[in-house]
Amino acid sequence: MSWFSVAPGAPFGTEELPYGIFSLAGGDPRIGVAIGDQVIDLAVVAEAADRSSGHFRQPSLNAFLAAGPEEWGRTRELLQWLLSDESGPDALQPHLHPMAEVRLHLPFQVADYVDFYASEQHATNVGRIFRPDGAALTPNWKHMPIGYHGRSGTVVVTGTDVVRPHGQRKAPEDDAPTFGPSTKLDFEAELGFVVGTPSTLGEPVPVEDFHDHVFGVVILNDWSARDLQAWEYVPLGPFLGKSFATSVSAWVLPLAALGYAEVELPDQDPELLPYLEGRSHGYDITVEVELNGQVISRCPAAGLYYSPAQMLAHLTVNGASLRTGDLYGSGTISGPAPGQCGSLLELTWNGGRPLQLPDGGHTFLSDGDLVVMRASAPGQHGRIRLGEVAGRIVAGTVSGS
Amino acid sequence: MSWFSVAPGAPFGTEELPYGIFSLAGGDPRIGVAIGDQVIDLAVVAEAADRSSGHFRQPSLNAFLAAGPEEWGRTRELLQWLLSDESGPDALQPHLHPMAEVRLHLPFQVADYVDFYASEQHATNVGRIFRPDGAALTPNWKHMPIGYHGRSGTVVVTGTDVVRPHGQRKAPEDDAPTFGPSTKLDFEAELGFVVGTPSTLGEPVPVEDFHDHVFGVVILNDWSARDLQAWEYVPLGPFLGKSFATSVSAWVLPLAALGYAEVELPDQDPELLPYLEGRSHGYDITVEVELNGQVISRCPAAGLYYSPAQMLAHLTVNGASLRTGDLYGSGTISGPAPGQCGSLLELTWNGGRPLQLPDGGHTFLSDGDLVVMRASAPGQHGRIRLGEVAGRIVAGTVSGS
Repeated sequence: MSWFSVAPGAPFGTEELPYGIFSLAGGDPRIGVAIGDQVIDLAVVAEAADRSSGHFRQPSLNAFLAAGPEEWGRTRELLQWLLSDESGPDALQPHLHPMAEVRLHLPFQVADYVDFYASEQHATNVGRIFRPDGAALTPNWKHMPIGYHGRSGTVVVTGTDVVRPHGQRKAPEDDAPTFGPSTKLDFEAELGFVVGTPSTLGEPVPVEDFHDHVFGVVILNDWSARDLQAWEYVPLGPFLGKSFATSVSAWVLPLAALGYAEVELPDQDPELLPYLEGRSHGYDITVEVELNGQVISRCPAAGLYYSPAQMLAHLTVNGASLRTGDLYGSGTISGPAPGQCGSLLELTWNGGRPLQLPDGGHTFLSDGDLVVMRASAPGQHGRIRLGEVAGRIVAGTVSGS
Repeated sequence: MSWFSVAPGAPFGTEELPYGIFSLAGGDPRIGVAIGDQVIDLAVVAEAADRSSGHFRQPSLNAFLAAGPEEWGRTRELLQWLLSDESGPDALQPHLHPMAEVRLHLPFQVADYVDFYASEQHATNVGRIFRPDGAALTPNWKHMPIGYHGRSGTVVVTGTDVVRPHGQRKAPEDDAPTFGPSTKLDFEAELGFVVGTPSTLGEPVPVEDFHDHVFGVVILNDWSARDLQAWEYVPLGPFLGKSFATSVSAWVLPLAALGYAEVELPDQDPELLPYLEGRSHGYDITVEVELNGQVISRCPAAGLYYSPAQMLAHLTVNGASLRTGDLYGSGTISGPAPGQCGSLLELTWNGGRPLQLPDGGHTFLSDGDLVVMRASAPGQHGRIRLGEVAGRIVAGTVSGS
């Protein structure tokens, strides 16, 4: 039991203890832990507990992430002890700041960003829309978690405006490509997995070592310009259709908080190659997507075909090394029901079936639209939360004319 | 005229003045400039000249790259003055170290790594080999420099062994994929362009601003596992077939050294969209590929269809920002003649026509093979050089079994 009383409507309870980077007016950014509607100043708390605080007094989580699973565990235990009735409020209370008074920053310096494509329903929907004459799933899809590298330099924190990208597009019936602001701007609801412990070049990381390397989870919105993407992506994959912005939540939920959310994977048939087998699990996390204040989708990550441990094993099986701060996305999470798709591409079937909302019909995103994603999962005492990732679309500057 | 006398066979003359990171036994890595077979200790030289040396006494070029074009110009002028007969040897001579006595490191911390596909001959050859039933060039190819993001965490410096990657492959006639060490390991001869000055998210960088942002050039070997690549790359592009290693030369040649190598672009037809037009040029750099001591190809970058300025404008036209340390490759450089292809895929036509070398027939790379790429270009007084990028293939550890 905890002496801490969670304010009604607060973004977090006492179970999550997610990590982020905060600053007070005029102060240096450093590590904070969210609880209720408060932020714990972790460096100060660690010093008060006679613990080294060097990797907490940093403008990113990276040094703490690099410290590895034992330090992650010790830190969480310290926080849980300080929140317990046995300890009482005196040690922690003075180091809490109301969340309304802090500024939140990108929580970690992103090393490489990889995006997977692990939802069978999403891959099937996209295949049907983009390649109507072919098989919906490519022949490799059920043999490996398909992925590609995205742009790590344009990963931004929740609250950052997203400038509508300009670019080339060409419809099949057009003679030549045209240039202009994207007319099919979309979101993608995903989970992002954050690597703490690096690995050695040339040495694959097996499925079983997932918890030794991956620290936690963010909510990730992989903004996508479908018109740019459709014209550019053959043969080398998505590039400018994705690279303009990827938004992540300010709070990284440690995997240690998600023990009650672990679920078995769906049946994987045909049988996978041995390097993808082994004990591995999914997470029963639901990502809720809100457009201009209306919930338009609830995306069930429990249904993802591949586990994050399988994604990690695949990513490194060729000997590619991990660095602290590597981020990999699950790919858009779509379930089988109509209200479970993680993109407007699917929810409106490429714009052909507008969503009817109180503010009118919606196909793709308009300037001024606000997309907010929130996520939650089963915890020990009710549902736990992953915070939110929000972004508003703004018009881009005219260029290339 | 310079008092410096270049040793016969030395890797550089007095025109190049390329930058790298070196260390002496037991010393900290810091910026060096190569001349002849010597390395100039730049921080010490700057201090002796009463110049600030903070960004030279660093383990990567990044702080110097971030300082921008004026500082790049001032530094090159200082070096040219110190090498001139007017100055004489006394100021520089004490700060030279024989290249044989220094250790060279990865010259810059790679932010994002993008690889383009700008050689028409290469794209045509690959299209014919990988998609024999379709058009060799995809419909978008002559409208934009096609590119994708690679893995920046596995960019390694010349001399680093390359571990043969394991992975999945499936030939069309196979029922199911199999797992094992790549049987079609290849190199790709490319130029890599190194970004110094960052840009702002949401603001494209026009073709004309190329020299404000790009500092210099490296030779780049984009190692590729063709069997892994062929099975994985549809629909999201190359991933594990490329991400295990990308080698770069230890020395970054500043664009300022390449004024005599600027050449007009080939005819671009159909006409490009306006954002890709404007004053822009290629570089008449030839990359020579040596396999186990035999020159097997001379790849002419002068024939690339797109200029590096067009690649930069395309990369940012959607508002994607640049960071100091961004690296983008030209894509494999292949000319129209048989001995001008930048990959074994093309030189052996997917392994069907082995190269006959003194040590036997070669299709793809065997364990123990050594690939060395060297490059040169016209300078003011004869040809200038870009150093070399070398890598030896070593067997990978067995995994996934």
